[in-house]
Amino acid sequence: MKYNPVTPKIISELENIVGLKNVITRPEELYVYSRDSTIFEHSPDVVVIPKTAEQVSEILKLANREKIPVVPRGAGTSASGSPIPIMGGIVLDMSRNDKILEIDSHNLTVEVESGVVCDLLNEELAKHGFFFPPDPASSPACTIAGMVANNSAGNMAMKYGTTRDHVLWLEVVLPTGEIIQTGSTTIKSVSQFDLTRLMVGSEGQLGVITKVGLKLTPLPEHHATAFFIFKTVEDAAKAAVRVRSTMTTIPCMLEFLNETTTRAAFDYAGLEYPVGYTIILDFDGAKDTAEADLEAGFKLCEKENPIYKEKAKDAAHRTQLLTARKAALPALARLRPTTCMEDCTVQITKLPQAAKAIEEIPARLGAEDFMDLGNFGHIGDGNMHPTFCFDERIEEQRDVFFKGMDILYEDIILPLGGSVTGEHGIGLIRAKYIDREHGDASVKIMRGIKKLFDPNMILNPGKGKGG
Amino acid sequence: MKYNPVTPKIISELENIVGLKNVITRPEELYVYSRDSTIFEHSPDVVVIPKTAEQVSEILKLANREKIPVVPRGAGTSASGSPIPIMGGIVLDMSRNDKILEIDSHNLTVEVESGVVCDLLNEELAKHGFFFPPDPASSPACTIAGMVANNSAGNMAMKYGTTRDHVLWLEVVLPTGEIIQTGSTTIKSVSQFDLTRLMVGSEGQLGVITKVGLKLTPLPEHHATAFFIFKTVEDAAKAAVRVRSTMTTIPCMLEFLNETTTRAAFDYAGLEYPVGYTIILDFDGAKDTAEADLEAGFKLCEKENPIYKEKAKDAAHRTQLLTARKAALPALARLRPTTCMEDCTVQITKLPQAAKAIEEIPARLGAEDFMDLGNFGHIGDGNMHPTFCFDERIEEQRDVFFKGMDILYEDIILPLGGSVTGEHGIGLIRAKYIDREHGDASVKIMRGIKKLFDPNMILNPGKGKGG
Repeated sequence: MKYNPVTPKIISELENIVGLKNVITRPEELYVYSRDSTIFEHSPDVVVIPKTAEQVSEILKLANREKIPVVPRGAGTSASGSPIPIMGGIVLDMSRNDKILEIDSHNLTVEVESGVVCDLLNEELAKHGFFFPPDPASSPACTIAGMVANNSAGNMAMKYGTTRDHVLWLEVVLPTGEIIQTGSTTIKSVSQFDLTRLMVGSEGQLGVITKVGLKLTPLPEHHATAFFIFKTVEDAAKAAVRVRSTMTTIPCMLEFLNETTTRAAFDYAGLEYPVGYTIILDFDGAKDTAEADLEAGFKLCEKENPIYKEKAKDAAHRTQLLTARKAALPALARLRPTTCMEDCTVQITKLPQAAKAIEEIPARLGAEDFMDLGNFGHIGDGNMHPTFCFDERIEEQRDVFFKGMDILYEDIILPLGGSVTGEHGIGLIRAKYIDREHGDASVKIMRGIKKLFDPNMILNPGKGKGG
Repeated sequence: MKYNPVTPKIISELENIVGLKNVITRPEELYVYSRDSTIFEHSPDVVVIPKTAEQVSEILKLANREKIPVVPRGAGTSASGSPIPIMGGIVLDMSRNDKILEIDSHNLTVEVESGVVCDLLNEELAKHGFFFPPDPASSPACTIAGMVANNSAGNMAMKYGTTRDHVLWLEVVLPTGEIIQTGSTTIKSVSQFDLTRLMVGSEGQLGVITKVGLKLTPLPEHHATAFFIFKTVEDAAKAAVRVRSTMTTIPCMLEFLNETTTRAAFDYAGLEYPVGYTIILDFDGAKDTAEADLEAGFKLCEKENPIYKEKAKDAAHRTQLLTARKAALPALARLRPTTCMEDCTVQITKLPQAAKAIEEIPARLGAEDFMDLGNFGHIGDGNMHPTFCFDERIEEQRDVFFKGMDILYEDIILPLGGSVTGEHGIGLIRAKYIDREHGDASVKIMRGIKKLFDPNMILNPGKGKGG
């Protein structure tokens, strides 16, 4: 696909649509939009800050007519390269549309603009006794539309599902400029092919999400939490498998940190426990039930011989543990200049094998001198985040990192029947593995869907799912 | 779209693919495939019973080459006309592929062939402590692939979600004959545009589902159930709204039967309670919690002055009540020769207004002498099944029925912002309302998706979603 440059005439048209102060062209400001949390980088030619779906529609009609790439962007916290405008063109900064439009506690729904930040939404919902369960580590910054575009998940997805399970309807501007509302404001509807969920996880390739309707979930009365430190990665993984495969109650959280991550996170949070492979186990619900479930889960984890085990004493202690867990990535970021977080899932029973093989990656690369490998994540649903810590400025290390990715996905995850992304998306970084995971016929259908929605391929082009 | 007839040569090719005994051409046998639970009727030219995805693929390649319509069919329990071969051609009877392939209680998944019957699956899963929550009234007969194609829901969807929320992956044969596997066998994956959920609710228009991978849900320890009879429809609806909008626990069931349905169902089940507008309320979970929740819900319902109220005394009493609820449709079927069950959803707060307006439909039609209107359903998520009881053989009554449908959807549901189907699908019967609910741009995209998957429009043509 051949794209056209952003000319001064087009800048002027964009200024007419959104107003002078909502168009950014100074290079030092554009630079802010050139990266996400991956190592890829490319500046847009112009950043536009639309306020309404109608403005987005005008911008997309213009871009579609002139064949200019457009990349929608929330908070840019992506770990896949998806918001990076690798072909230049226009970035749509959707983060400034940050109004919570209506919390309807009678119909158990909330309507928000695209740029509402996850934690801020939950602060407001808590006042009404509700929450929006998806809880990525980036929740203090990431936007709801960004979460929809990536089908974000986080710590509680095992019990509460991913973003997909909470979206009722979307207002979406198609690449051709048409504004549609997918789904229904009612709790149930099957009157449409599921355009809502086609948009969920579409990584900004099929449309620009301008409003989101979500279901509300009642806040649980109580959380009961414990943590365990194991000597080996296999013991930790086996404890997780034991809890998931034996208990009929679904835990709220079943989280994992490998030894490298445990050490970094405990340092970061000032916690003084033995260092090893950590499992955090949490049940929620009515107080007695949650505590009884935790007791049962505790006994199961004990069978794998933890070197340390403790129930959270109170809410403050629990917060301390969960803060350490959520700080896994920033804690690892203190080890080396670059931190690249990967994302993979396997079936639960394959966790011990997968987790052990992941630990061995730096040795296989002969990279132990300059690379640390963190690993952590939502082990309860088979989702881990192997995290390569190195120095991207040194070309040799960069090459070794890409070799490490190939080992991770091609030698470990795909042969185990896993998926190359559980919650971060394909974007740029995992694009090369999608054919092998899904096969030609599926990829052809995905490309066809992309072309149907976006005949001129203007919306976030060059990324994995739609090409 | 012009289709070609099924010639003797094509019959012979079909016999080569699936074997002589799996091809049906005798008119009296074809007649069995000419109806579902709606009043529409059309026989196929031939019924084919494939055993494998490869056979389905061969059949679809043949049909695609020869431009012959193909309608996949599970148990034919649809309430939308979707399985009726209105253009003749081939019916694929998928109900005979009824093997449960693997219950994996460690990975919390089950793999089934398309034709496994819902209740039989649940019987097997119960042996392992699990269940598949979607629970349509047709569960003794309906097939899993049919439930996927319609996104079936039933009594427990409010708490446990619809079929969509339980499907991990699908094996699907595309209309062009390609076999794909959507999704992932892992619990979480975002490596694909959501082809799985695009297939869920696609009503046999985008592909033929040959295998289904489902998540397992732990069976709850206990159910606590009560029922209430109210004097007016508004009191009953207000009780439902009160429970949903006040309690932070999501009930397992919150069901409704209007007076006509209550009378018929109590007669049918031999229950002797006062007749009125019934609400059935059920909480599940740990025993103490469920009973405490029921007590709280009971008090809320009492505020709307029920004329009768009772908690289920034991499991047998509960089964009796739920059997009466599930028998709503067969019970209504005893009132008049024809029973046409509709399907609509509104926001919870709009239930009293919607339910009252629905009660008034026969009077508005001047049809009280020859038409009864049952209404029942999953009022907890705003989903009701107004059911027209009349005699389809009398043309005047048939015309009045279609006028009643228009009043229901065009005068009541759509002006309230509702959806014309919560769980039964569009099919034939609701096709005329889809434009008004979703607008031109959405319908155009749906048509485009249909054309992308099925360029020759051979798969279940002439139905609502894909045209």
